[in-house]
Amino acid sequence: MAYIDLQNDEPGIRGPMAYRPETAKPLNELAELLLRSEDNSLSKGDRELIGAYVSYLNDCFFCQNVHGAMAGHYMGCSLEQIDAIKNDPSKAAISDKMRALLAIAASVQQNGKQVTPEQVSAARELGATDREIHDTVLIAAAFCMFNRYVDGLGTWAPEDRQVYVNRAPMRAEQGYVGSVPPAK
Amino acid sequence: MAYIDLQNDEPGIRGPMAYRPETAKPLNELAELLLRSEDNSLSKGDRELIGAYVSYLNDCFFCQNVHGAMAGHYMGCSLEQIDAIKNDPSKAAISDKMRALLAIAASVQQNGKQVTPEQVSAARELGATDREIHDTVLIAAAFCMFNRYVDGLGTWAPEDRQVYVNRAPMRAEQGYVGSVPPAK
Repeated sequence: MAYIDLQNDEPGIRGPMAYRPETAKPLNELAELLLRSEDNSLSKGDRELIGAYVSYLNDCFFCQNVHGAMAGHYMGCSLEQIDAIKNDPSKAAISDKMRALLAIAASVQQNGKQVTPEQVSAARELGATDREIHDTVLIAAAFCMFNRYVDGLGTWAPEDRQVYVNRAPMRAEQGYVGSVPPAK
Repeated sequence: MAYIDLQNDEPGIRGPMAYRPETAKPLNELAELLLRSEDNSLSKGDRELIGAYVSYLNDCFFCQNVHGAMAGHYMGCSLEQIDAIKNDPSKAAISDKMRALLAIAASVQQNGKQVTPEQVSAARELGATDREIHDTVLIAAAFCMFNRYVDGLGTWAPEDRQVYVNRAPMRAEQGYVGSVPPAK
């Protein structure tokens, strides 16, 4: 049960988004641009993985499973394989560039000031562009918002993680804009 | 000097927003809706104060001064008076309802899970509506994003706090949408 009467029984962020469609609109547009725009040299899987990883660090069950399942869908791997990356990116089977970007994301999750020039240099030396570093910081920052929105209102989330895996292909097809039920 | 070449010398969030106008658009639309929409029972001053307070807790110099000056502009008080509220809302000359909403915002700043049913009940007993509680949580969450975006990219900020006070009336007049220089 959410802390306020959301007037719907949608899970996770869908509950407050359906309750307040005015603010849902720019929130979904931001997610769509950051995570799904074709105009990006980071793959959709990489971008969802950054979101899932930050959600894991923020201990947000709903977001880490939604976006972990999305990352798995795009990357062709299971939620358990995504879990392994989230639990220890330093040893995961990902590119060194992604490892460096996830390190930046982990600093952003703590506080923007935790990002160091050395982390940025390391990512750049491994091939990350300015745009990729920018988008990594903004994706990580945006998930610090989404996670707090979901948990700060005490929304509910399906406990069965297979639910998230099952929904991922539909969400990948339809995108985030229009993902929320129409306003009352 | 920001960590990446923003290709402009705008301060704070204006730098990365001018660098990446696509994502600036929904970010500014979100700020406009949350902070300036007339359709809200929280005053513009109250909403800017929530943003300034969260930015203070996140130690983001640019955002706490921009939005502290905006709160002061709307509330008719000085940046020093806003500082006093940010430093100790428990003793500040604000309504008990705002004190309860700032307590919720402070929990959101830490992590969404830190918000307690007791904090929400306390705010409600002091007259806060569900919409006001919703907006407090989302404003606090959004500033956890804005602050990380500003500091995670190492943007610069004017040190003279009077600069922020001087700009507040113009920003109050023009709003956040369109606050960023046009795309290159």
